[in-house]
Amino acid sequence: MNNNHSEPVYIESAMCPVPIRDRGHIILGHGSGGKLSHDLIAERFLPAFDNPVLRTGDDAGVVKLNACTQLAISTDSHVVKPLFFPGGDIGRLAVCGTVNDVAMMGANPLYLTVGFILEEGLEIGLLERVIESMQATAVTANIQIVAGDTKVVERGKADGLYINTTGVGLMLPATNISGANARPGDVVIVSGTLGDHGIAVLSARGELGLETDIQSDVAPLNKLILAILEATDAVHVLRDPTRGGLATTLNEIAKQSGVGILLDEAALPIRPQVRAACEMLGFDPLMIANEGKVVAIVPEAAADTVLAVLRQSPYGQEAAVIGQIVAEPAGRVLLANPFGGKRIVDMLMGEILPRIC
Amino acid sequence: MNNNHSEPVYIESAMCPVPIRDRGHIILGHGSGGKLSHDLIAERFLPAFDNPVLRTGDDAGVVKLNACTQLAISTDSHVVKPLFFPGGDIGRLAVCGTVNDVAMMGANPLYLTVGFILEEGLEIGLLERVIESMQATAVTANIQIVAGDTKVVERGKADGLYINTTGVGLMLPATNISGANARPGDVVIVSGTLGDHGIAVLSARGELGLETDIQSDVAPLNKLILAILEATDAVHVLRDPTRGGLATTLNEIAKQSGVGILLDEAALPIRPQVRAACEMLGFDPLMIANEGKVVAIVPEAAADTVLAVLRQSPYGQEAAVIGQIVAEPAGRVLLANPFGGKRIVDMLMGEILPRIC
Repeated sequence: MNNNHSEPVYIESAMCPVPIRDRGHIILGHGSGGKLSHDLIAERFLPAFDNPVLRTGDDAGVVKLNACTQLAISTDSHVVKPLFFPGGDIGRLAVCGTVNDVAMMGANPLYLTVGFILEEGLEIGLLERVIESMQATAVTANIQIVAGDTKVVERGKADGLYINTTGVGLMLPATNISGANARPGDVVIVSGTLGDHGIAVLSARGELGLETDIQSDVAPLNKLILAILEATDAVHVLRDPTRGGLATTLNEIAKQSGVGILLDEAALPIRPQVRAACEMLGFDPLMIANEGKVVAIVPEAAADTVLAVLRQSPYGQEAAVIGQIVAEPAGRVLLANPFGGKRIVDMLMGEILPRIC
Repeated sequence: MNNNHSEPVYIESAMCPVPIRDRGHIILGHGSGGKLSHDLIAERFLPAFDNPVLRTGDDAGVVKLNACTQLAISTDSHVVKPLFFPGGDIGRLAVCGTVNDVAMMGANPLYLTVGFILEEGLEIGLLERVIESMQATAVTANIQIVAGDTKVVERGKADGLYINTTGVGLMLPATNISGANARPGDVVIVSGTLGDHGIAVLSARGELGLETDIQSDVAPLNKLILAILEATDAVHVLRDPTRGGLATTLNEIAKQSGVGILLDEAALPIRPQVRAACEMLGFDPLMIANEGKVVAIVPEAAADTVLAVLRQSPYGQEAAVIGQIVAEPAGRVLLANPFGGKRIVDMLMGEILPRIC
């Protein structure tokens, strides 16, 4: 610690294992949603595909179709392992993941496409269960599946099945929601407990070595988002903290908005079983994926309204204010513990849970 | 042969190997684009996802967004092997495949999403070549890439990389193009030679055992389609004969429209090298995939206009009228040879060229 400076001193988090980085080949960390994914996008995809829509770095692209119509469009491929886990399956996940990404832009998700890559030898009965789950979730989310595609690859060239979903939504009038809109004085709200999805999937792999009754939180949040936006027009940022967890999502927002984010450790809603599993495995629950949670950043004056709406939904019972937006240090996320200490919360650096979604 | 009936006698094609069908598991034929793909869709996907948009069975879903706006939305996952082949690569294919499916509805493709599934260990240099090819093709097609996603799976759980693309287009005013709109008296036009893509990919696999200089025809056809629709409003059907080839595409149209299709064998544009490769391998060139061809079905009076537009494009130099729509036998495609014989042209039954796109 260096006490000769008046600047605050932060203790770097030791929770993020940094992999030996191979610049020449793809490694699992490139799919983590964390730092390596960001680097891959920033260094390989954006220079080639560069355009103003992609450059925003939001969960969905927003495009102006004509004078009266703006669309939000988002895509996600799903490779979760195992295909069925406590609280969900790859089908439900594939619908929710894309519905939520579209909704987070302040759009009403209307249409979904589904692309299957099937492995030769897959049981058709299993495929049917996935299809039924997708349809049930689509009905819940009130989204219509309008196009599909099926490819089959040889045995050993996929892992059962992979599903891409792409969603198209209609932007709600006069919404201006983006990861770039967080402002000092805003508060950070999360709709419920953190890390449930990641720990549930990990548990289903039998890799935990402990019993847990944690269920994935995978859920379509579009109705909840619509209710928030009907209740207040003050929302600045909406984002679902999926791959890379809350830590990665908040780091993205801090960088996009050029602000600091100060979290209150005591306010973070984390189930005791998730906390216990993370402690045992050396994971930071802030790095663990969620699939049914929203982070809302709003002016402090709107916080009670948003919390009240969230708590009316089955998906927002444990909503809480967990932090605030500050001017400095810009681009950084800090976690204040009850004893007055602060540590930097980085985005996920390597890959702790491959194929979590 | 039964000469006691006055009905015409057709000789069934012997070109379609019918696989031993396994009803319990996915086989490669389920991805062929032919009969098994259709059965999978009809028996598994449609009963679950059923809605009026999907039920049309067209290449893209057409949805009414509001009073002034209709969208065409299409999705395709691409698993072609090898990733690079004469005339193209998986990146160019992924952009063209979806651009073309959207354009075939009479829509102007505007926005594209890209979802990568990467195999651990993939060379980043190779990925960069694919990305560059996608961007170059997107520029040619004048479509904007507005959202993306990257997942990574373990070594051995993919085959280098798979790409999903989903396209969104704006329906042109007053277009009513569908596979259900073919009418007796219409003629069938194809924009050029048949089977080039399939044979080029097969050749690149080193499985041909003969030298061939065939290049894939993979190309974005949206500007060509737009030119046709600007020249005439008489177009009834547009479809790209990809997986399953012309035979499968025309069978789909015959069934959707409830009409017969009578092809003139002598009029089919097929390169000698493709014909030779097919003869050697026991393939029917009508079953081989194309990736830069359009089938247009139009009233006879509009045929010359459409042919003239096609021949102005580099992608339509060898356009030809290849047949006509007839009332009977409804739902069937027949091929008339120069000697007066006719045979039934079925859709692809099994899978002759897995992972062709």
